[in-house]
Amino acid sequence: MKIVLDAMGGDHGPKVTVQGAVDAVNEYGINIILTGDKNAIEKELNIKNYPKDKIEIIHCSEEISNEDKPVAAIKKKKDSSMVVALNLVKEGKADAIISAGNTGALLAGGLLILGRIKGIDRPALAPTIPTEKGISILIDGGANSDCKPRNYLEFGLMGSVYAMKMLEILKPKVCLVNIGIEEGKGNDSTKAAYEVCKNAPYHFCGNVEARDIPSGYADVIVCDGFTGNVILKLMEGVASTFMKLLKEELTKNTIRKFGAMLLKSGFKGFKKRFDYTEYGGAPFLGVKGLLIKAHGSSNEKAVKNAIRQAKILVEKEVVMEITTEINKLGADTIE
Amino acid sequence: MKIVLDAMGGDHGPKVTVQGAVDAVNEYGINIILTGDKNAIEKELNIKNYPKDKIEIIHCSEEISNEDKPVAAIKKKKDSSMVVALNLVKEGKADAIISAGNTGALLAGGLLILGRIKGIDRPALAPTIPTEKGISILIDGGANSDCKPRNYLEFGLMGSVYAMKMLEILKPKVCLVNIGIEEGKGNDSTKAAYEVCKNAPYHFCGNVEARDIPSGYADVIVCDGFTGNVILKLMEGVASTFMKLLKEELTKNTIRKFGAMLLKSGFKGFKKRFDYTEYGGAPFLGVKGLLIKAHGSSNEKAVKNAIRQAKILVEKEVVMEITTEINKLGADTIE
Repeated sequence: MKIVLDAMGGDHGPKVTVQGAVDAVNEYGINIILTGDKNAIEKELNIKNYPKDKIEIIHCSEEISNEDKPVAAIKKKKDSSMVVALNLVKEGKADAIISAGNTGALLAGGLLILGRIKGIDRPALAPTIPTEKGISILIDGGANSDCKPRNYLEFGLMGSVYAMKMLEILKPKVCLVNIGIEEGKGNDSTKAAYEVCKNAPYHFCGNVEARDIPSGYADVIVCDGFTGNVILKLMEGVASTFMKLLKEELTKNTIRKFGAMLLKSGFKGFKKRFDYTEYGGAPFLGVKGLLIKAHGSSNEKAVKNAIRQAKILVEKEVVMEITTEINKLGADTIE
Repeated sequence: MKIVLDAMGGDHGPKVTVQGAVDAVNEYGINIILTGDKNAIEKELNIKNYPKDKIEIIHCSEEISNEDKPVAAIKKKKDSSMVVALNLVKEGKADAIISAGNTGALLAGGLLILGRIKGIDRPALAPTIPTEKGISILIDGGANSDCKPRNYLEFGLMGSVYAMKMLEILKPKVCLVNIGIEEGKGNDSTKAAYEVCKNAPYHFCGNVEARDIPSGYADVIVCDGFTGNVILKLMEGVASTFMKLLKEELTKNTIRKFGAMLLKSGFKGFKKRFDYTEYGGAPFLGVKGLLIKAHGSSNEKAVKNAIRQAKILVEKEVVMEITTEINKLGADTIE
């Protein structure tokens, strides 16, 4: 198996991506291709220990930044680390691509270079979110702001396949984010989505209210990309505010500081449960090829875990499985 | 000033509403009318100390339950505690109404009985949310699932007036919930809303990402009622999951339990910052009269604070102020 990693992507570039790749090679024994500036990559690689035949560098003269306009960047920067990596997957020279770079460009690249699986109208991002029970899959995490009923149906299907393979849940519980649990609740979009999803060939369990998302009530949480973006970012914001206020309150005097010291490992355990670096990245499901978007602020561990995640999804043939299931569904007959 | 309280509303009925009313009368010296079952109310009232001339009971033979269909309930249950209370405001016999009852019915009642302020297309719920800085106003908290640009414009205006009067902010920062801060980001609905809001006569400060809501970046957070519902319920869910997991981690062994004991007052202070009972209820802004929806699970303190909030909003003539501002805006020329 060969996984290509966009070495220039993410807030920290090769410093972090190369370390993540080396750790993954050492731990999982897979082959990795790094695309990007050869000098910058070699500077990092030369000081690491790893089996030399396991990592290959493909030099690229360009780089897509976070400021670049997505579609224009993909079309113009043909020799960028991201475009070159995507082409390797398209040409069958790599089994999966991982990038922590410009999200919009990566999704545009997925659509323009890899293309959609036949029968899929809208590929979607499927990040994991931490819950009381472990993790749930959110789909769409932000690729499609406005959705038709058919899109929700596809999101549920892709999320269900992904949860089966990645979380090893036999029959994932798929729910639609809505403002009430009863059928008939919602805005125009979710009401229409419910009508289509209720006959889905996967385990559709109706609506889920946002209040029940963190408890882990649903394994797969289906929503449009606007709502998905709000959910992801709000969870992040609430967690950050919570930790800040908690720290403020718990260090107000000496007794509290002493108490907080005794709880240090407890707080660490608590924080770990909300640590996104544990879970890798978010696959862009529905394109012809395995594409994983890693968080822009990924550290070495997050990159390594995204590679582990790619390995699992390649081994379990997630893209093939989605292709098979969408064929069975014949979703293109639904608007 | 006379405030009417639907004594039958909420999960606990007269047991809680009557106590809240008595506390408010004793603390703020205002007059209260309680609508509902006379026997049930008197049973509670008879055992309390308060100036007898300050609380009046109007007996009602009916009650609207949470299972009732909103519009049908308002139309059919003419002698329910909620409908009678709304009519008192309409007839000028009370200055404000508070109910912790069926939200849908209360909003329907607000529209059908009180009616909309001329120029307002869609009244909206404006709950407060706790932030790092204090509190922000969210509007719409769930009354309108699908919104036109004009509605967002009105929400911003009403939220701005409310924040000035209630939070005493001179120039409230009004932001639109969106998936990126740049103009041009969003779904069809928020893109169109931005176009209209950017010329608003209040302090519109562009988009706010959900991540920045808990930090208190915006004083007034504008969104459609679907998104508002997701935000409110998700914050509630994340807070509850957070506290549960924290407790789990911090009581795992004896040392941690001891540490947690030392932090007891710290945790209490922390929890207080997220305590909705401190802030009263959510006004339904844009109707002709002051209507406050209290949380269904309100305790005595929440009821008392909703009464305090009603008192402030009546004194500061919020309804009149919204009427004046919407007239100046001439919003009915915008689609």
